[in-house]
Amino acid sequence: MNRRRSAVLLIHCPDRQGLVVAVTGFIQEHRGNIVHLDEVVDGDSGTFFMRVEWELEGFTIPPERIAETFQTAVAAKLAMVWSLYFSEDVPRMAIFVSHLPHCLYDLLARRQAGEWRVDIPLIVGNHPDLEDVARRFGIDFYCFPVDAGNKSRQEAAELELLERNRIDFIVLARYMQILSGGFVARYPNRIINIHHSFLPAFPGARPYHSAYERGVKIIGATSHYVSAQLDEGPIIAQDVIHLSHKDQVADLIRKGRDLEKTVLARAVWHHLQRRILVFGNRTVVFD
Amino acid sequence: MNRRRSAVLLIHCPDRQGLVVAVTGFIQEHRGNIVHLDEVVDGDSGTFFMRVEWELEGFTIPPERIAETFQTAVAAKLAMVWSLYFSEDVPRMAIFVSHLPHCLYDLLARRQAGEWRVDIPLIVGNHPDLEDVARRFGIDFYCFPVDAGNKSRQEAAELELLERNRIDFIVLARYMQILSGGFVARYPNRIINIHHSFLPAFPGARPYHSAYERGVKIIGATSHYVSAQLDEGPIIAQDVIHLSHKDQVADLIRKGRDLEKTVLARAVWHHLQRRILVFGNRTVVFD
Amino acid sequence: MNRRRSAVLLIHCPDRQGLVVAVTGFIQEHRGNIVHLDEVVDGDSGTFFMRVEWELEGFTIPPERIAETFQTAVAAKLAMVWSLYFSEDVPRMAIFVSHLPHCLYDLLARRQAGEWRVDIPLIVGNHPDLEDVARRFGIDFYCFPVDAGNKSRQEAAELELLERNRIDFIVLARYMQILSGGFVARYPNRIINIHHSFLPAFPGARPYHSAYERGVKIIGATSHYVSAQLDEGPIIAQDVIHLSHKDQVADLIRKGRDLEKTVLARAVWHHLQRRILVFGNRTVVFD
Amino acid sequence: MNRRRSAVLLIHCPDRQGLVVAVTGFIQEHRGNIVHLDEVVDGDSGTFFMRVEWELEGFTIPPERIAETFQTAVAAKLAMVWSLYFSEDVPRMAIFVSHLPHCLYDLLARRQAGEWRVDIPLIVGNHPDLEDVARRFGIDFYCFPVDAGNKSRQEAAELELLERNRIDFIVLARYMQILSGGFVARYPNRIINIHHSFLPAFPGARPYHSAYERGVKIIGATSHYVSAQLDEGPIIAQDVIHLSHKDQVADLIRKGRDLEKTVLARAVWHHLQRRILVFGNRTVVFD
Repeated sequence: MNRRRSAVLLIHCPDRQGLVVAVTGFIQEHRGNIVHLDEVVDGDSGTFFMRVEWELEGFTIPPERIAETFQTAVAAKLAMVWSLYFSEDVPRMAIFVSHLPHCLYDLLARRQAGEWRVDIPLIVGNHPDLEDVARRFGIDFYCFPVDAGNKSRQEAAELELLERNRIDFIVLARYMQILSGGFVARYPNRIINIHHSFLPAFPGARPYHSAYERGVKIIGATSHYVSAQLDEGPIIAQDVIHLSHKDQVADLIRKGRDLEKTVLARAVWHHLQRRILVFGNRTVVFD
Repeated sequence: MNRRRSAVLLIHCPDRQGLVVAVTGFIQEHRGNIVHLDEVVDGDSGTFFMRVEWELEGFTIPPERIAETFQTAVAAKLAMVWSLYFSEDVPRMAIFVSHLPHCLYDLLARRQAGEWRVDIPLIVGNHPDLEDVARRFGIDFYCFPVDAGNKSRQEAAELELLERNRIDFIVLARYMQILSGGFVARYPNRIINIHHSFLPAFPGARPYHSAYERGVKIIGATSHYVSAQLDEGPIIAQDVIHLSHKDQVADLIRKGRDLEKTVLARAVWHHLQRRILVFGNRTVVFD
Repeated sequence: MNRRRSAVLLIHCPDRQGLVVAVTGFIQEHRGNIVHLDEVVDGDSGTFFMRVEWELEGFTIPPERIAETFQTAVAAKLAMVWSLYFSEDVPRMAIFVSHLPHCLYDLLARRQAGEWRVDIPLIVGNHPDLEDVARRFGIDFYCFPVDAGNKSRQEAAELELLERNRIDFIVLARYMQILSGGFVARYPNRIINIHHSFLPAFPGARPYHSAYERGVKIIGATSHYVSAQLDEGPIIAQDVIHLSHKDQVADLIRKGRDLEKTVLARAVWHHLQRRILVFGNRTVVFD
Repeated sequence: MNRRRSAVLLIHCPDRQGLVVAVTGFIQEHRGNIVHLDEVVDGDSGTFFMRVEWELEGFTIPPERIAETFQTAVAAKLAMVWSLYFSEDVPRMAIFVSHLPHCLYDLLARRQAGEWRVDIPLIVGNHPDLEDVARRFGIDFYCFPVDAGNKSRQEAAELELLERNRIDFIVLARYMQILSGGFVARYPNRIINIHHSFLPAFPGARPYHSAYERGVKIIGATSHYVSAQLDEGPIIAQDVIHLSHKDQVADLIRKGRDLEKTVLARAVWHHLQRRILVFGNRTVVFD
């Protein structure tokens, strides 16, 4: 029985004539039925982006040979950078947390309620505060307290744990700890963070306090892939909420919390759906 | 000199394998460079929608023969319903008004500022109130007062005027008069109205009063193509604004005014860009 | 030790001169320090609404005598309808559910994370599906299956349960069952429902399907107090999300889910904060 | 005949008991009927803010003596900073422009349509481009080209012109020129600017290009009072619009244009309504 029912190709390359025909022709030639196709050309950089999803039922190339065949038949000659996913593969996600539970609860509830097809084998905390939440949902919790002296040792242990559990990507659910460049390099564009401001406004610590000080009328939240530079990775999703002059810092924190949950979940959903293409420091999000 | 620089095809038909390849292959075969391609399949109805735009420079079929060639080579055998536009054609728009000037000012200012490529040969009012605005922008104003007795006669005169001026489409900029089914049938999916509520809530007259009575916390505006049924045509764009308990009916009217301008302009812009496909009572808006 | 640290008065009455002075003078005379004051006059109905919160530390009237003193000294002569709350009283909330867990998870997580000061002694389901969620959070779950024949008997049992547990208000977290008029009358303006549409558009069952059919470009969610007429009670909060033509019914359901959580939580928070005044079929929400 | 029908007091001072009673008692004692009262205490700074509006009909102090009486009877002893306005006074507004017409058209149309009670005696441009728009609306246009050598001379001439025309406040409608500190000091909190980004993100020139480069998913517009520091004055209003990966810089500019109009108009409306209190670098906007 073939559990892999559809395949997704994410592609980017320099724009030129005939790219859409090349890809769709390949799928059609092998009897795939295209269910979604999104294509866009970034005019300024002259780059072509494409996401195509087709049903595997009746497709004449077996799943395990599609990558190789596509590379030889299409991608190589067109300088395409591409990745291939199968809808039936269930990604394995780790969650990193500190003290604040709201994003963690939201992620776990979505998994539990069946909104998302994802496995969550483990939760990592740099404090033990949320172990109780993990237990409530029956998920293993590992505590790695980090200080100036033990950071590289702890990160090494975390990496070992992640690998042993074959983790595909990591979600930082208000994890208040900066990951080293070396750690980040191991999961390129596979660590999703939620920052509690409308980036690039108010990067760094305590953005709600800074927003209050500046007297802004709107606050935001930003989910992004983590890169070597703090709060500067490719942005996946953003949203905002209006304030009034009555709102004190505590109100910003309260209103912001709901935003953080929603914006982080939106990013994770698009990642799970293989709808995000990273190009330079920008994302193409097909939705 | 070829003034027509790009062409747009809007297509819909029953979904089947190979539709994208058929269209893009046709364009590529004749050396057209695709600059935008949007394609979507409505899963529930099994309908395929596509908008494709390509540059005419170097295209081997002359503009005046594209329609015929495409019909024969591609569309006929795939049961495609399609329309073809050239970016260099400047559409001719008539505006219908009554007493309220805000949408009219907004439309005229956009034209005048060069935001839109559109000709506005004339404005029709069922009252003389806004003749002064028309004159301010140097546009002909025609007053057709309508009452129970003269409606069909006045509409006939309006239609004659529109035809004489080769009007492509009509914008009802808070025109407070119901057009007859016969009139509407002459401009199918070519009359754009702005209704001052979030349809289907509060159809008909005085929606702000009704919204206030119901105690809603949000009001909206809806732009749609006019169909035979009042306020029931295909929706093009909608937007909303939040209220507080302090807002009285006069505040709803004030806040709604800005919404009406924006939502109507958004619909007109998409119409001018040939980005709207009407299917049944729904629209596909490629943006 | 006095655990009641601040008091809230919610007041409405016909507008006349001197109302603000009367209330604030009363508080000042007894050495209360006002921390919030909101006042608004509904111009159309000529009704005065006020919410005032003051610190009880140093207030010269003991908490248990404030109601009586205020009635005699101020309210009686000005025809004021009012209610008095103490910030330290923890309201007791029951949650009613059917099959869908997302709102339930969200409410329980907020309670558990300490976002809200509220007790949740029990959850009522008309199906057993969510008993597992209740257990996960250590809350009693009672199942009352309802059919045509047993409705009044089951409601009687529910009412008895609610009273025995001294429930202050009820939240219908996607409870797919209509409560009888008699039941509703027992908790006037104390049952909060979330309806998955932008009321008054799409009342009743399957609003996402109706919204899809109508081709709207925005969907919404509405939280309201339950009244005898289905989906017609006083609206507390509403919000919306934009759609595109790509969204199928399943996408409306997915996007709507997040909206439902947020809008319901907003209503519950305002209710817990004693910030809602109901007047006729409208709410004044001081935020 | 008394043309001044209502009065507005805007007040701020250190918070203490009895402030509301002091002000409302003063109005009531002289038989004024309060139609709006808004009061808020900024908890962090311990500052009290109040806006109160009352009808002058029957008020026992003649308009020209209210300021003096209020200062002596109430404000002096409570260290209140306050200003008094009469609803019947029509403010005189100057508009400064460069090349872009969209905000100018919007402001003039609102004035012309009677949305706002405001006089616009003159428009100042640092280029002649928009003289034609001014003429279309019958308003005097003055051109003051500014370069490195003549800036102080030109600003002196502008100030002379503004004074001669008794201008109350200035709106910078995409005026692409930095005013000197000396100029700004002459109209403290009386120059309203629109900046085409969500401040503090992307201050300075070409924010849409910067936003595109950073790959944000939302762009914004900010209206603020001009202070000595560029783009750092007190924020009055902000709003945002979502982007997709399809949006190029030209789309950001197009979408941003509508935002700029709306956000600037919202700030001007609140200023005209005397609903804005400036405190430090923040605004209290009573709406």
